[in-house]
Amino acid sequence: MLSSASTAELAPHASSRLDRWALARIQALVRTAPVTFMLWDGHEIPPAQGPAIGTILFRNRGALISWLWDAELNFGETYMSGTVELHGDLVQLLEAIYRALDSTKRRRWRRVGANDTNAARHNVHHHYDLGNPFYRLWLDREMVYTCAYFPVPGATLEDAQIAKMDLVCRKLHLRPGERVIEAGCGWGSLALFMARRYGVTVRAFNISTEQIAYARERARAEHLEGQVEFIEDDYRSVSGTCDAFVSVGMLEHVGTADYPSLGRVIDRSLSAAGRGLLHFIGRNHAAPLNAWIRKRIFPGAYAPTLRQVFEHVLEPHHFSVLDVENLRLHYAKTLDHWGRRFRSSRAEVAAMFDESFVRAWDLYLAGSEATFTTGSLQLFQVVFTRGTNNHVPWTRSGLP
Amino acid sequence: MLSSASTAELAPHASSRLDRWALARIQALVRTAPVTFMLWDGHEIPPAQGPAIGTILFRNRGALISWLWDAELNFGETYMSGTVELHGDLVQLLEAIYRALDSTKRRRWRRVGANDTNAARHNVHHHYDLGNPFYRLWLDREMVYTCAYFPVPGATLEDAQIAKMDLVCRKLHLRPGERVIEAGCGWGSLALFMARRYGVTVRAFNISTEQIAYARERARAEHLEGQVEFIEDDYRSVSGTCDAFVSVGMLEHVGTADYPSLGRVIDRSLSAAGRGLLHFIGRNHAAPLNAWIRKRIFPGAYAPTLRQVFEHVLEPHHFSVLDVENLRLHYAKTLDHWGRRFRSSRAEVAAMFDESFVRAWDLYLAGSEATFTTGSLQLFQVVFTRGTNNHVPWTRSGLP
Repeated sequence: MLSSASTAELAPHASSRLDRWALARIQALVRTAPVTFMLWDGHEIPPAQGPAIGTILFRNRGALISWLWDAELNFGETYMSGTVELHGDLVQLLEAIYRALDSTKRRRWRRVGANDTNAARHNVHHHYDLGNPFYRLWLDREMVYTCAYFPVPGATLEDAQIAKMDLVCRKLHLRPGERVIEAGCGWGSLALFMARRYGVTVRAFNISTEQIAYARERARAEHLEGQVEFIEDDYRSVSGTCDAFVSVGMLEHVGTADYPSLGRVIDRSLSAAGRGLLHFIGRNHAAPLNAWIRKRIFPGAYAPTLRQVFEHVLEPHHFSVLDVENLRLHYAKTLDHWGRRFRSSRAEVAAMFDESFVRAWDLYLAGSEATFTTGSLQLFQVVFTRGTNNHVPWTRSGLP
Repeated sequence: MLSSASTAELAPHASSRLDRWALARIQALVRTAPVTFMLWDGHEIPPAQGPAIGTILFRNRGALISWLWDAELNFGETYMSGTVELHGDLVQLLEAIYRALDSTKRRRWRRVGANDTNAARHNVHHHYDLGNPFYRLWLDREMVYTCAYFPVPGATLEDAQIAKMDLVCRKLHLRPGERVIEAGCGWGSLALFMARRYGVTVRAFNISTEQIAYARERARAEHLEGQVEFIEDDYRSVSGTCDAFVSVGMLEHVGTADYPSLGRVIDRSLSAAGRGLLHFIGRNHAAPLNAWIRKRIFPGAYAPTLRQVFEHVLEPHHFSVLDVENLRLHYAKTLDHWGRRFRSSRAEVAAMFDESFVRAWDLYLAGSEATFTTGSLQLFQVVFTRGTNNHVPWTRSGLP
């Protein structure tokens, strides 16, 4: 509910008939959501039925009109600028909006453009080079910025990230001395984990300058430079052969147009009995990511369906899918942890950037959590091998 | 190797230059296979390198020419008629042929025609109504005619079929009192197992008259008529709601053109928190089944890729894939068991049918085993639910 502190700040000038009509149009997009829509002068539209779990407050006409024009994009833009306020629990409010949208509007898939190596570098820099101190505020100790695996829902985030890395290694059946290629290695936590715990050698690729520098420093500190090589380069430049090819949280940045390139890279890298694992945010049906997320948070990103990945990455090379697991609710929980940590560090983040950055990231983390809880997004782990490889595990015993 | 008994029967008339040219053309299709090709007069082409693991003997010119025309189809036709003999271990010989073919020839996918309800009934009758006594000769005690699950490779077929049924139930997380719909229930073993062990009620559909009669008799004998209803009808006629939708070994008979119908049937049947499981023979890349198998063994059958199933059955209804497992090597082992039992019952089968039937089924079972060991075919189990269902298992603990 709207606090008295913020109602006190409401603008004195009255809303017009046109403003009220616009508000009604916007409310109609999510008619079933238990949310109150309010204008700057206090005019409000309560939920069609039941009590409201929150309020969306437009502080001026510009914000209101921008939603009429493109609600998907300008929801985020106006929240970021502070011209729209969301009162109530942010995740719950966004869940309500997404559920209501789903029942009224089904989007078609639009093909997402290619990300050539320059675009890829720009896109990755935009997000991952915000400074390691920023990410250290709210990620786990290992700096893992992908979905964790909670053996039980109450596990800590630190334990769940370790459990995720171990799950990935067990799915890949890593054996000491094997060669692993990792495409998109973040701050290097998985590469170092594989080397330390499973005795493999790793060549890990990433185009984020800050992440690679951090990862190399960790390798030196842990005396793993001989076992783990961090390479600042694009996945398309991957060379050499490996017994396991792993990519956790990179496919989202590849773009469907470049899936065939990724398939070729895997095909030329993987040994005859090699295994591959792709861990990525996906969908049950093809659709673009939210327009605001693409503009402000992840330029060039796309969450594919399993079908798209199979068709364009795996099938052309006759790879055999061995195992698929959907960890959707684990990502919702991971984001819940990140969101809590982020909000408890609001002041530090505001000091590093500014208030609009804080609001943008708060919305991004809360919105992402809501997309996983409402089923708009999935988290898939796909294990595959060559079609002719008979040295595959007999059963899943040992997993999870 | 060719036994002296059969060389003694070789035709006296000599092969011509044209015959020898034809043999060379045929051998060239599988140049790398360690197999000897031989004509009726003893003229032979040994393997390009290494010792032969077996011999393919053409007993007359008609057989030879038929292979030039369509080796894929007439391999089976001539073996069935006895005008081509295969000497050596049949499975190993076929594996060698398939491996050699794979490296020289990659087939494109041709769309398989629709199976309307009449065609479906005809196709199913062709295979499954050969008489229960025939199948009892070589199937397990429970009469399960789909891929078994061997917890360890040395498990018996009887135990492995029970283990498969239990695996299916655990993947579906069946709870006592829940309602299950089974599309394509064979001789009813899974439906009865689910009712007996998991306390659910089952409505099981099948269009094979003999199988349904057998299943109903079993339900009466086990006093499970109140819990399991066997319905002689097409999957498209499935009505009512269920908490679990399961189909084991039916999708192969549906045909891609009717996948949307199957998707609609599941969508209209499944409750809000319902789970579905599809168990089917599939492929890593789209291709038709072997022409002879389609002509003689499984008219109208098609083994899809995961992509095809996702695109046409699951995605249109926004179903969420929770779990995929590939049991390819389990099907090779299942077929090994069936083949051994079948061969030890050759005399009884010949008495029921004739020698060409015996040869056809021997080839079908051995050839199927070879397609699984060489990776031409896969066995997928896909678990899914509605995209909005959050009552999904937190982890796979309890599985395998």
